[in-house]
Amino acid sequence: MTSTAEAPRPPGRPRSVRAAEAIIEATLDLLAEGSTIEAISVEAIAARAGVGKATIYRRWPGKDALLHDALRTLKGSPPQPAGRSVREDLITLVGAIGHNVDPRAAKIMPCLVPEVKRNPEHYALYQSIVEPRRAVLREVLRRGIRDGELRADLDIEVTMAMLTGPMLIQRVMNWNPDLDVTTLPARVVDQVLTGIRAG
Amino acid sequence: MTSTAEAPRPPGRPRSVRAAEAIIEATLDLLAEGSTIEAISVEAIAARAGVGKATIYRRWPGKDALLHDALRTLKGSPPQPAGRSVREDLITLVGAIGHNVDPRAAKIMPCLVPEVKRNPEHYALYQSIVEPRRAVLREVLRRGIRDGELRADLDIEVTMAMLTGPMLIQRVMNWNPDLDVTTLPARVVDQVLTGIRAG
Repeated sequence: MTSTAEAPRPPGRPRSVRAAEAIIEATLDLLAEGSTIEAISVEAIAARAGVGKATIYRRWPGKDALLHDALRTLKGSPPQPAGRSVREDLITLVGAIGHNVDPRAAKIMPCLVPEVKRNPEHYALYQSIVEPRRAVLREVLRRGIRDGELRADLDIEVTMAMLTGPMLIQRVMNWNPDLDVTTLPARVVDQVLTGIRAG
Repeated sequence: MTSTAEAPRPPGRPRSVRAAEAIIEATLDLLAEGSTIEAISVEAIAARAGVGKATIYRRWPGKDALLHDALRTLKGSPPQPAGRSVREDLITLVGAIGHNVDPRAAKIMPCLVPEVKRNPEHYALYQSIVEPRRAVLREVLRRGIRDGELRADLDIEVTMAMLTGPMLIQRVMNWNPDLDVTTLPARVVDQVLTGIRAG
């Protein structure tokens, strides 16, 4: 150990990074406690993070940009499929739908839904989180068509909704108590691949 | 016309029916204005309907039973398919998913979602609305298997989720702005029937 007359610098990342993290965490905590994205204010976030409003405005132009970064942090990066087979990649991607590592997401995400339809800016915020995930799924389907694993005439956007919808309605509202979310990804992918029409 | 010395009876349905309707309407109005099913009280409903609490308890054992009837009234009866072809029946049923005649439903239903996962009684309430609709869909699929239109080995519960999920996520949160809900039912049904795997 070394002794010094100056106050020790806190270890690790620079102070501006720690302030940004505290601001993101404060935003997510307030949302998880029931603040709506409509009602949450930069003032409240600053107070909760223990920083001044100027610290927030130095990094984000406004509330929506901060919410965007906070929700992206909450959701994490879209999963990266292994790229060996379309079936395997689809099961990986479907399994990640609505799966949240951060427990605050289960409180925040369903409550966003009524708001995104009311407000175009909030809808844009929601889409900025969802579209990168859709893009990964779309690319796996396109690759499957190129490689001849999937029909050339398949309806890509509808197939994405068929893969996503069942997991979202199960994870968000447990739509059908007889469906187990752990086995659902493989069951959905296999049924989507095969179709239901007789022979 | 007959004249009488007594006060005229109001025309139409008996008073008890009109009171019940006013109670249902008051419940739906309060929910549409933002009351949660957690917070809404029999007192508030009685006050809004202009009746005493005893009038409510004469007809319903408690709040949950009243909410059940109010939500069933809101959603209406499940649609009845024509029964000519599986494809046509599925398009009818998928088109009805998340479609609400009563504009209050668009305000009430999405806000129920965060609550149904928190509270087993509210989940039971939600399921009592959803299961009759699932039952109609399930019966069309079973009929399709019996008649040889659909594969005998199809995964019925998963197929129901594949048919329902896309419409619900589009109607409730406009999940993908590139999907038009008016053409989605036929596109979903055709893709579910055919499957996506290459010939």
